[in-house]
Order: sequence, then structure tokens, then C-alpha cells
Amino acid sequence: MLLSYFSKKYNMELLYYAVIFTSMLSENTKGYFEMSEEMKELAKQEEGFLGVDSARNEIGISVSYWKSLENIEKWKQNSDHLIAQQKGKESWYSWYNVKICKVEREYEFGNL
Amino acid sequence: MLLSYFSKKYNMELLYYAVIFTSMLSENTKGYFEMSEEMKELAKQEEGFLGVDSARNEIGISVSYWKSLENIEKWKQNSDHLIAQQKGKESWYSWYNVKICKVEREYEFGNL
Repeated sequence: MLLSYFSKKYNMELLYYAVIFTSMLSENTKGYFEMSEEMKELAKQEEGFLGVDSARNEIGISVSYWKSLENIEKWKQNSDHLIAQQKGKESWYSWYNVKICKVEREYEFGNL
Repeated sequence: MLLSYFSKKYNMELLYYAVIFTSMLSENTKGYFEMSEEMKELAKQEEGFLGVDSARNEIGISVSYWKSLENIEKWKQNSDHLIAQQKGKESWYSWYNVKICKVEREYEFGNL
């Protein structure tokens, strides 16, 4: 049985995108965690934002969900987000990788 | 500039799939972490397996990468993996969600 987390939650068709952001932090993380929280709050206000899942051990994985590729592009170009991206490259991250994906199928077990 | 983690690594076209597995553990995690490691080792031997990224805090996120949808389906039906899935539903997970995605674009910063 195919279910959709977001289609159930938002009563929409299963058509959305996932941005998989994997990263390694450098030794200089001053200000990083505050900025990370700020960016999450800012993303929530962005058009087409559906949700985000994050976890970090050796590497960090943050997957955000969006209604369209245009929404993702607009968030990437958000001016506060651009400043955060710049600081990320200058200081916080030794490496990151971004994958923009189309969700094709989804299923779920249990309750959150 | 678009780069591809796997196309660089495996000298292939940027055409592959990501399985985003998000989960919440129940209170009964006896045997879970050993099985999780076993499943990773087993997946590595599976045809079309490209890699996996994992992290867990409040929720666990594990993203595995595959050459094709057929490879993903075959891994899902692997007999040892089926046993692990059954135990996962019976004991370890209170919730999980699986999203099968086509990677459409990718870019990267820095070095791993």
C-alpha cells in the first residue's frame, strides 16, 4: 500500500521534492547552531515549504520537503539564506553535498 | 556548477535514486543496532548499491543510493532484509517512513 506523509498531512497529491543536504562540520562551529535554527524558522515561512527532518552524528543529514523546484530555487536565493550559505562555506562546513530529488513513491508504518 | 558525488566517484552519469528512510525507535531496541550494521553490510553486496548516509538523534535518517528502481525493489525483497523488516515492525520501530526519490540535480562544496 502506498501512503504519503505529506498527502495525508496536507491533503494534496503525492507530488513534491526533497532536498537532501549532507554535511561535515569544520572545527569552527561558532554561531553555527543558532544560525541553523534561524534558517529552519525562516524556511518555514517560505512558500512551498512542507517540512524538514534533521539528524547529526559523524555527518549531518537534513532533508527538507518542497512543493516545487521553483520553491526550492527561491529559498536558495533568499537573501538571509545566502548570507548563511556564505558563512557556511567560509567557516562551518568542511564539506557539504546537496541533492535535489523528486519523490516518486512513499510508504509508512506506525504513528508519529 | 553541477557536480555529482556518485558520478565523480563511480564515473557514471547523474542518474540514480535515493531511498530516504526516517524512523522513530520504540523502547525495545534489543538487537536493533547489530541488525542495522548487518543490513548495511548486506546492502553493500546488493546489485546497484551506491552508498548510504546515516545519522540519528530524535529521529533517525538513513539515505541509501541506488542505480535503479529495480535494484531498490530487489533489496526490499532480499530474504534476510525481509526478516529484519518484520522484526523492525514487531519491535524496534514505533514509526517509519520510506520515500523513493529520483535524484535530479546535485552540487557539492569542499572535500570529504
